[in-house]
Amino acid sequence: LEFLKEKILSNGQAIDEHILKVDSFLNHQVEPLLMQKIGKEFALHFLKEKITKVATIESSGIAPALFTALELNVPLVILKKQPSKILNNDFCQTEVKSFTKGNTYNLTVSKKYINSNDHVLFIDDFLAYGEAALGALRLFEKLSAKPCGIGIVIEKSFQPGRTKLNELNIPIYSLAKIKKMTKGNIIFND
Amino acid sequence: LEFLKEKILSNGQAIDEHILKVDSFLNHQVEPLLMQKIGKEFALHFLKEKITKVATIESSGIAPALFTALELNVPLVILKKQPSKILNNDFCQTEVKSFTKGNTYNLTVSKKYINSNDHVLFIDDFLAYGEAALGALRLFEKLSAKPCGIGIVIEKSFQPGRTKLNELNIPIYSLAKIKKMTKGNIIFND
Repeated sequence: LEFLKEKILSNGQAIDEHILKVDSFLNHQVEPLLMQKIGKEFALHFLKEKITKVATIESSGIAPALFTALELNVPLVILKKQPSKILNNDFCQTEVKSFTKGNTYNLTVSKKYINSNDHVLFIDDFLAYGEAALGALRLFEKLSAKPCGIGIVIEKSFQPGRTKLNELNIPIYSLAKIKKMTKGNIIFND
Repeated sequence: LEFLKEKILSNGQAIDEHILKVDSFLNHQVEPLLMQKIGKEFALHFLKEKITKVATIESSGIAPALFTALELNVPLVILKKQPSKILNNDFCQTEVKSFTKGNTYNLTVSKKYINSNDHVLFIDDFLAYGEAALGALRLFEKLSAKPCGIGIVIEKSFQPGRTKLNELNIPIYSLAKIKKMTKGNIIFND
């Protein structure tokens, strides 16, 4: 997606070989028009999958996922990061280890909002180690919902997430794929 | 706002005199079309304030705030809830005590994204004790930005937040004001 790559090159910051800061338009300050374009792109790409719910993880995924859900005219479900386990049968949880942040949380969803009739499209801002996406997919499996697609705004293709997700045979669409980074320098896959 | 009140009456759940669950359309599952309508209403109401930034607190405020920012054609700044203090002069922080959740966090914003030229509109999903909104306003003050409005989706008028905010002489627009709740029953202000 050219407009996104241009934005990453002009406003993103490669801190080192691993860390990309996109605080100015995606994570902390958010550009609504860019998010709307991203949402339209995901919706168009996954249109034939008969999506019934878009799901994301709080909080950086919400902006692109919300516009995707708007375009597809389906609800958005925000998966919550709970510090502790909930002892309540109304919720479904799975433990996720964040390599990027170095912490562990319980990814949580109410059983009311995703069920066995759902075709779910998972949207997230980054794909790096893939642990968050794998956690979301474990939740959909527990709830017998069908995962029909994974939409990623920025994929760090040099980290292991993409390879892990490829094994699952779910369509993945990453809008910008980064092959390599060095301090101040970003190289895309194509 | 009639469509919102109807939604609260049909899909909200008054658990007791204090707790209103709106998980099905605002907090956990999110209805994009409803959020878009809410964003348009806030944008129209605060149009004359020459807003340069919309700000909200992660994560339940993001959906209504994003559509407000889209309509006003300005960036959205997501204030972060950090568990600990950041010892870094690039960030501005203030401690907030959540009466609703019983915890304390450090509301955090990068100095890059709000500055003394900004006219800020603060949007949040709920107004209850007002501590989150007061925290956001303390940050704007530290950054010498001008707070030009507060937009609240659901105000629990029987809790002390509204009275605290009224003292600041900033225009407040609450879309639905709840006067009183009992288990299973919600009474609006007008």
